Amino acid sequence: MVKSNPLYRLMNPRSIAFFGASNSIMTIGTPLLLNIIKGGYRGKVFPVHPTKKTVLGLPAYKDVSSLPEVPDLAFLVVSKKAVLDVLDACGRRGVKLAVIVTAGYGETGSEKDRDIQAALDEVAMKYGIRYLGPNCMGIINTAIGLNTTWFPYTQTPGHIGFISQSGSYVTQALPYFARMGIGLSKAVSIGNQANIDMIDCLEYLGDDPDTRAIAIYAEGIKRPRTFLEKARNITSIKPIVIMYVGGTRAGARAAASHTSAMAGHDGICAGMFRQAGVLRAMSFPDMFDACLALVQQPLPKGNRMAILTNSGGPAITMADACDRCDLDVPLFDSRTRERIKKIIPPVASPKNPVDVTLNYDPDLIFSRLPDIIMDLPYIDGMLFYGIFGPVHLKDKINLAGDLIEIPIDMISDAMEKACMKFVSAYRRFKKPILCACFCGRDDDEAVKQIEDGGIPVYPTPERAVKAMAALYRYSMIIKARHGDMTDEYN
Amino acid sequence: MVKSNPLYRLMNPRSIAFFGASNSIMTIGTPLLLNIIKGGYRGKVFPVHPTKKTVLGLPAYKDVSSLPEVPDLAFLVVSKKAVLDVLDACGRRGVKLAVIVTAGYGETGSEKDRDIQAALDEVAMKYGIRYLGPNCMGIINTAIGLNTTWFPYTQTPGHIGFISQSGSYVTQALPYFARMGIGLSKAVSIGNQANIDMIDCLEYLGDDPDTRAIAIYAEGIKRPRTFLEKARNITSIKPIVIMYVGGTRAGARAAASHTSAMAGHDGICAGMFRQAGVLRAMSFPDMFDACLALVQQPLPKGNRMAILTNSGGPAITMADACDRCDLDVPLFDSRTRERIKKIIPPVASPKNPVDVTLNYDPDLIFSRLPDIIMDLPYIDGMLFYGIFGPVHLKDKINLAGDLIEIPIDMISDAMEKACMKFVSAYRRFKKPILCACFCGRDDDEAVKQIEDGGIPVYPTPERAVKAMAALYRYSMIIKARHGDMTDEYN
Repeated sequence: MVKSNPLYRLMNPRSIAFFGASNSIMTIGTPLLLNIIKGGYRGKVFPVHPTKKTVLGLPAYKDVSSLPEVPDLAFLVVSKKAVLDVLDACGRRGVKLAVIVTAGYGETGSEKDRDIQAALDEVAMKYGIRYLGPNCMGIINTAIGLNTTWFPYTQTPGHIGFISQSGSYVTQALPYFARMGIGLSKAVSIGNQANIDMIDCLEYLGDDPDTRAIAIYAEGIKRPRTFLEKARNITSIKPIVIMYVGGTRAGARAAASHTSAMAGHDGICAGMFRQAGVLRAMSFPDMFDACLALVQQPLPKGNRMAILTNSGGPAITMADACDRCDLDVPLFDSRTRERIKKIIPPVASPKNPVDVTLNYDPDLIFSRLPDIIMDLPYIDGMLFYGIFGPVHLKDKINLAGDLIEIPIDMISDAMEKACMKFVSAYRRFKKPILCACFCGRDDDEAVKQIEDGGIPVYPTPERAVKAMAALYRYSMIIKARHGDMTDEYN
Repeated sequence: MVKSNPLYRLMNPRSIAFFGASNSIMTIGTPLLLNIIKGGYRGKVFPVHPTKKTVLGLPAYKDVSSLPEVPDLAFLVVSKKAVLDVLDACGRRGVKLAVIVTAGYGETGSEKDRDIQAALDEVAMKYGIRYLGPNCMGIINTAIGLNTTWFPYTQTPGHIGFISQSGSYVTQALPYFARMGIGLSKAVSIGNQANIDMIDCLEYLGDDPDTRAIAIYAEGIKRPRTFLEKARNITSIKPIVIMYVGGTRAGARAAASHTSAMAGHDGICAGMFRQAGVLRAMSFPDMFDACLALVQQPLPKGNRMAILTNSGGPAITMADACDRCDLDVPLFDSRTRERIKKIIPPVASPKNPVDVTLNYDPDLIFSRLPDIIMDLPYIDGMLFYGIFGPVHLKDKINLAGDLIEIPIDMISDAMEKACMKFVSAYRRFKKPILCACFCGRDDDEAVKQIEDGGIPVYPTPERAVKAMAALYRYSMIIKARHGDMTDEYN
């Protein structure tokens, strides 16, 4: 535990001085301050404003020297020409931590702007200030309700820590996370990394007990040797999934203009990630799909998957995707096939995939079949498609009007009980289950129940399979380092 | 135009006799009949039931011979042992078209069931009946509000025709289509293809004026030579996108149990698709992402893309994804860079990607910049990220309470006008635009406005790029066949 790491205090400030908000929403800092004071953060907040008596209902101070105490953190969204003076004044007052949201530094490519960025660092050195940015969106710490970014965080706290060279991905993706049931522990928008950098954040999240998997959006890797060493240490205890976009020709050029990142060749970086045991995702959804599985589900001991569905198309899509992702779908032994055949409809298939076809017995697909399948010694995990909550029958009720009666309460009740058994299965068997469903938690109460029970539900069959492949890859990394430790790990 | 193709009448029946619904939702046919009579279909519907006087409020008939007229279509969801008799009775009455939903035929793998499937065909031959199935979900024709499947079709009609070996994908994906703004023209669940097969459907959709792109979910390709020939003809006039899942080891085994498909090796099929000019998608979302772009946007003349965003991360993600999809992101010429620099914020990047960073001037990103960029002779299309409708400020208003005023009406008004200009750009310049946004049409009125204006909005930057790559690939196919016909095609 490296307590000298500035992220500890940065993520848990007792007080924040905010520079650059007003009582107009058109002032760029205002929505950020609004999120801080309305998002659940319970520390002290001191708006600093040259003329206003109050900002967003809080007493405002005309400068940092007027503050009633030395704040733990100075948050700067002021104009570029004011940044240096504000930072200097903060330093004089004894502030030791800052976030600089203001942009227009190293990323513009001009030598002058690079010099101004260097001047920031001089001021910081002089007063011993550690700072995040410039050109960033700040931080999210869901444990204390602190979110300095533009969008509100509406999802319950979770266990994915996110380090991003893009502020957009930290804030604009929050509605996406909410829709997908993705809970964050912490998020850091690192911007130009003039002072605090990706490795500081990695080290911090590596130690953070709330963080069980780390997602990194990277446009370049600074200090690659240190990155490799730190990442390799962390991946022995928790997974890291990286989305690296600076390695292609167009990506590298764009990255330089964004966060002044010096991007390494894609193939070289890929090799480094492999050496470090860092999983690579080729898209933003893939990264968080993998993280969601990694924080919620046990690791599979091997790559042998069972597929259980109520629909043929998704079953075959999953089988095909498994083959492409180095997951195996072994044929069940004949005794098991016979056992399954006895309890499924006559037209259903018992071979693996097991496709029970559409039927109204939730106990079959959510409980009796998983109990048989998950117990097989040659099965390491299960992929599942077939969640249709009572809401879908409610649609039918609306269509039907007075025409027919639908025993919705009975079905809801049976469904709820079956889902309760379902979500216990991965714990009982210590094997992962991942689901897919075209409906989301907002549309289907059974999806919500299963997600709340700790089993991720992905929007398409392929995505569930890719996430399972990430679980398997990480389990192989752990095995290579420690021998078969999946039991202890799980 | 092959009027002998049974799909013409099957898709437009003047009357339907429905076998296998009752007044209980637990009867498997009931929800299907409910969809038919409540989904907007205006033809005659005759429920056939041995004992009930009415079914779902309609007069019921005890058998096909009691019907007041010969129905255009017999729809069978009866038990397997009853199918043959019902089909025979329909034949005697003069019925010429049937859909057989009932399963348990060739797909079970038993010789007995294969024989029963062959018996179906004998009856059909005897009376000259053409039928869809068995083991299918029937059809959707959005032009006449006819949907014989389980889920309701809630999206407005569109121009994607869908042929599926999976009934699930035709019906369970309907909520997904609605959420994604994907409009279908027609859909056919082909099941075991004992009589009407994929090629009949392909031929029909190739001729169908409502269908501008064809999506195929395939577990195997019957009559491959004919498939290649027909598909090659169709792809000269409209695109076909296929998702083929039967070619891997696990996929092939599962496909056989599902629709008795004889699946061909993945690589061989891939070669056939290439020869036929059929685009291949590796996942369900990719298939419909591509189709959405193909039916709504003009084809690019080349692969040179402009990227316009208000966020760095998505800009670089798009640039990186372009490189991986063989799309080029050329640096703008210095004169254009100067022109752009003059109108964007000082910290923004004018090079391509153009990243204007977060700002409150919708006219800049939705109108003035597209007008410059789309007009460049060396730019063939535009990828866009940066839609934030007034709804996001409404969130802020809710958070702010009485603390500040937000000029929401003014901003909504400016946004709406800017979006109107934006959606005209692809028509004025005859170049494609594809957007990405983490919010959907339900969450953001600007997304809705842009989608309704004909520009697809994908949930992530990578998906917009992949769809653009599909547009480019199809434009190259057209060019190879006809020379540069994109002007005429567009």
